[in-house]
Amino acid sequence: MLKDSVRTISYKKAIVNNPHLFKGKTVLDVGCGTGILSMFACQAGAAQVFAVDASDILDTARQVIADNGFSDRITCIKGKIEEIELPVTSVDIIVSEWMGYFLFYESMLNSVIFARDKWLAPGGIILPDKASVYICGIEDGDYKDEKINYWDNVYGFDMSCIKKQAILEPLVDTVNAQAVATRAAKIMTVDIHTVKVEDLTWMSPFKITATRNEYIHAFVAYFDIEFSKCHKNVVFATGPDSTYTHWKQTVFYLKDSITINEGESISGVISVAPNAGNHRDLDITLQYDFDGTVHSLHDTQEFRLR
Amino acid sequence: MLKDSVRTISYKKAIVNNPHLFKGKTVLDVGCGTGILSMFACQAGAAQVFAVDASDILDTARQVIADNGFSDRITCIKGKIEEIELPVTSVDIIVSEWMGYFLFYESMLNSVIFARDKWLAPGGIILPDKASVYICGIEDGDYKDEKINYWDNVYGFDMSCIKKQAILEPLVDTVNAQAVATRAAKIMTVDIHTVKVEDLTWMSPFKITATRNEYIHAFVAYFDIEFSKCHKNVVFATGPDSTYTHWKQTVFYLKDSITINEGESISGVISVAPNAGNHRDLDITLQYDFDGTVHSLHDTQEFRLR
Repeated sequence: MLKDSVRTISYKKAIVNNPHLFKGKTVLDVGCGTGILSMFACQAGAAQVFAVDASDILDTARQVIADNGFSDRITCIKGKIEEIELPVTSVDIIVSEWMGYFLFYESMLNSVIFARDKWLAPGGIILPDKASVYICGIEDGDYKDEKINYWDNVYGFDMSCIKKQAILEPLVDTVNAQAVATRAAKIMTVDIHTVKVEDLTWMSPFKITATRNEYIHAFVAYFDIEFSKCHKNVVFATGPDSTYTHWKQTVFYLKDSITINEGESISGVISVAPNAGNHRDLDITLQYDFDGTVHSLHDTQEFRLR
Repeated sequence: MLKDSVRTISYKKAIVNNPHLFKGKTVLDVGCGTGILSMFACQAGAAQVFAVDASDILDTARQVIADNGFSDRITCIKGKIEEIELPVTSVDIIVSEWMGYFLFYESMLNSVIFARDKWLAPGGIILPDKASVYICGIEDGDYKDEKINYWDNVYGFDMSCIKKQAILEPLVDTVNAQAVATRAAKIMTVDIHTVKVEDLTWMSPFKITATRNEYIHAFVAYFDIEFSKCHKNVVFATGPDSTYTHWKQTVFYLKDSITINEGESISGVISVAPNAGNHRDLDITLQYDFDGTVHSLHDTQEFRLR
């Protein structure tokens, strides 16, 4: 994960280049992994850092932190953020790399919210502090044939019942920028300083307009991340036209393709909610309406990220 | 997994092209997945097939089998092979796609052995019935730098303690055929008709000879699979010079590289055993000796596939 350099370099810029934010401060690193954000915080002048992770990686973090001479300033704590105790009543800064696929899938945002509400001092800051999700339409006929229509004839057998399951599951994959055939619409902005857990069940209308005559086979969602409290805004993006990150993009295949002309629009509503039975899964509904020159299409598709 | 066409086409050839083996026979499909091997068996003339799988994929298999008109001949049974009952006392043929990475990792061979000992009729056959494992040496300096030496300096931090863990874990990845710099040695052959569970803890000496002057950074292991009871032998291989399969190859990085001249040999012993604490994991020890013109190297490395 460290090898996702877009991400790690953005965090480094946001932390190490902003010692005026960190000098003498107390920092909490939520889900610290190998401890790299905690060490960046020390380089930026933090007085005291709490590095928390529930997994065994914490043992590695403790060793890495010792090997790099930060043991006097970083305290490693193994456990869930919801269950641990801190030896302080508040922290000045929370840093966390909490983002999941489609921003929210298996994300640690709930833990960041919990830590914020329990420990962040008034006027304290969170890095990053903003995240936005976008949607656009793509031409993806070849890949849809390979991933979805494949099941119509598998070595001579009809496995179309698997096709129905396949189309239910959004695909996390790299989308070529050339495949994008509409403008993007922003469907969600999360302010980490104020977001509540209940805000993570949300719906948003959207309207996306074609930039060329095309067949739309899928909607694609992606996000960008902002560290707006830095001296100079640090932003990184995960869209098809950005440098590769391990988050790639999230592709929602349409049952039927949309034959769209340049300038025509698709209107829709996206709804996102944790699955009632399994809170790690995300239920996503896409309702969309298209009335174009060539044809009209009105449909609602249910998806599940798991 | 069906999309691994090397594998699926080999099974199809071994089954569908051999109706003289299947005509009127009773077949057990161990770990049937989507049920494709069971349907191949019907196409080859099997009278009755039991398709067994412990996972929820069995529900999909049942639907696929119905959609393709095989429900009258294929009985789907959900459960572990060790726990289910069959409505017959014996079967004539066992088919199974049981192979894991490095052949043995998370493989279902134990279940195939169990099924064979409990149900296979005298003179019954197993498809496939032979598997062999090979080892060779490769030049892989760039990738070793990226995967292993990377940890020496991660954004300026010393994470060499992670390097020690990284080198412990064999890497399942695609090896370029041009990287292979020695002949291959066969280190294990499994006869599925006779193998016992205790044979899966094994050791083997090997000797591999360089085909050019080279630096050896890693050993690579891979396997091939044989359906020797077919009218014409069906074989597929998973080595660096074979068509891609999802099994790829398994790479064991050496702590130090070996500077070898063409014609010089590395001698060694490989030991493989299920981990005592976690039977899904495999402990692999590679002890190797090299006395060459440029230098000598004698070492023993422990690995763990998990």
